[in-house]
Amino acid sequence: MSKFLSEKLSALKEYTPGEQPQDKKYIKLNTNESPFPPSQGVIDGVNGKKVADLRLYSDPECKLLKEQLATVYSTTPDRVFLSNGSDEVLNFAFMAYGSNGVAFADITYGFYSVFCDLYGLKADVVRLNEDFSLNVDGFCGKNKLVVIANPNAPTGMDIPLSDVEKILQSNSKNVVVIDEAYVDFGGTSAVELTKKYKNLLCVQTFSKSRSMAGARLGFAIADKEIIADLEKIKYSTNPYNVNSLTQVAGLCALKENDYYMQNAKRIIQNREWTNDQLLSLGFEVLPSKANFIFAKTDKISGKDLYIKLKEKGVLVRHFDKPRISEFNRITVGSLEQMQVFIEKVKEILGELK
Amino acid sequence: MSKFLSEKLSALKEYTPGEQPQDKKYIKLNTNESPFPPSQGVIDGVNGKKVADLRLYSDPECKLLKEQLATVYSTTPDRVFLSNGSDEVLNFAFMAYGSNGVAFADITYGFYSVFCDLYGLKADVVRLNEDFSLNVDGFCGKNKLVVIANPNAPTGMDIPLSDVEKILQSNSKNVVVIDEAYVDFGGTSAVELTKKYKNLLCVQTFSKSRSMAGARLGFAIADKEIIADLEKIKYSTNPYNVNSLTQVAGLCALKENDYYMQNAKRIIQNREWTNDQLLSLGFEVLPSKANFIFAKTDKISGKDLYIKLKEKGVLVRHFDKPRISEFNRITVGSLEQMQVFIEKVKEILGELK
Repeated sequence: MSKFLSEKLSALKEYTPGEQPQDKKYIKLNTNESPFPPSQGVIDGVNGKKVADLRLYSDPECKLLKEQLATVYSTTPDRVFLSNGSDEVLNFAFMAYGSNGVAFADITYGFYSVFCDLYGLKADVVRLNEDFSLNVDGFCGKNKLVVIANPNAPTGMDIPLSDVEKILQSNSKNVVVIDEAYVDFGGTSAVELTKKYKNLLCVQTFSKSRSMAGARLGFAIADKEIIADLEKIKYSTNPYNVNSLTQVAGLCALKENDYYMQNAKRIIQNREWTNDQLLSLGFEVLPSKANFIFAKTDKISGKDLYIKLKEKGVLVRHFDKPRISEFNRITVGSLEQMQVFIEKVKEILGELK
Repeated sequence: MSKFLSEKLSALKEYTPGEQPQDKKYIKLNTNESPFPPSQGVIDGVNGKKVADLRLYSDPECKLLKEQLATVYSTTPDRVFLSNGSDEVLNFAFMAYGSNGVAFADITYGFYSVFCDLYGLKADVVRLNEDFSLNVDGFCGKNKLVVIANPNAPTGMDIPLSDVEKILQSNSKNVVVIDEAYVDFGGTSAVELTKKYKNLLCVQTFSKSRSMAGARLGFAIADKEIIADLEKIKYSTNPYNVNSLTQVAGLCALKENDYYMQNAKRIIQNREWTNDQLLSLGFEVLPSKANFIFAKTDKISGKDLYIKLKEKGVLVRHFDKPRISEFNRITVGSLEQMQVFIEKVKEILGELK
């Protein structure tokens, strides 16, 4: 850190992404990536003439991509926003709507508190219930930005749309962000509600169900006035935020949407299989609607299980935080990967005896 | 704009990128793109296995790219920062170092004032001299962030390193950003000075001389403490800011650096040819060290020339701003493009008689 850095930012604690160790080949179940490659159309699309066109700026309006998203999500292009990963939409939402403070859960995506610190916004942390379900009433009637991951991370638990509507109705003077990064794995999207509620901002990503974490593509659907706000901030920070290769990749992916939704179903099947296996090994497993499982056991601490799995070549994510330090978050990969994972867990539990 | 948007941002006037009209095929000399495609290695690199790997997150550390940049620029990886276009580095620099205000020229890259407005920073606008050269003394002894485009845009004029050093020495308590987006077209880079001055932040881009505007890749070279500041902000906003295809493209481009530096020489030749032609047509042309020319004539207003060129299929950039409204900024493309441009200018001047 330099002596020139502003005082406010000097005190900031940045977000820590999942580790990407290069020392050996791991079964990587720590960053919620998809085990499936992008569809053939994406590969063909990127491998086309566009690479030579890199000399030209990408379309700042992301016109084709907006139109295709509007088709897939039964809305209009002026209700769609594209971003360099969904983190960028979230960032803009905190900038735009956080000045009265921001309400989010105590256990949720770690970036929300970082954005608060970054912009000096007051965090109103709402504690999850004891069973890790969302305290819906705790989010009602806030005079501030509300941000809810649905399904939540790292718990994987979701709330029904009736609860989302309750929160929206009781916060009509403020924006409610529903972060739906994991919604395609069994959750229920609030996208349709954006037609009814002007204060709803739904955020999604191509990083999970659409196998494109490396392409950095996120999007938001909301009332067109909210979208105009986000565009304003984008044109005030980085107008060409989505590069042209990613625009092509995203467009091609949307044209083969069935492939991705089929993959999501396979992930759900693998999740349920893994779930059952962990339960039979005596684990407590939260009811996940995401492409990960959050689980713990009395037999070994969360941290020790994480370390031993890593030694055996399986990476999961451990959060050294209050209330959840006994848990690990396990990304649901291919069935083969999950079989290895369960086998290693059995080995580790066996070695304890 | 929604009623929810914060008051500060509601008043913000965002940046306006160069137009990208789709109504017909233009000779596009309005956004300073390169007329040359990326090198074959970039095309081969992107068309390789990486597309299937899009399912994985990009390397947030951009390790390989940092190492290669360090080699090309004779520095170390911990003195290099990678970003989603150079606008992102500039954005971070304003966030990090602008709290005491920011000094920049009255005629320069339009984004500097937008960043000031975005973060509520006080702009200290230093007027260029009457001949549009930088008022070097006017930037000395500022107790604030100093941002200088060198060569400057849209004038194309540069200052020697002795002037950069003078500004650095007289601003030792603050960061001085030298925005070198156009430096490869005949300017002198201050990169070497980053070893001597801890307050120097050099910003460059792959969008101009390296033919990759569509890939969104910028970088900064500075003392490692400055780089650590930028990393901190990156990890607090968008850790995976550079997607994996762009990382591959950038790496391949750097391995064929000679190709790009040869292209830059061709651009310089085309610039000098265009320059001479415009002079012989009675234009006043500022002495450019960039891949564009800033020129005006008494025979026709800047705006009228811009409009008439557009009607004839040639796009240039006109800025409707004080002191420069009589000028147009003409990107230097291929010789064939510049020949068409000159031909159209002659036609337009002929039609005036």
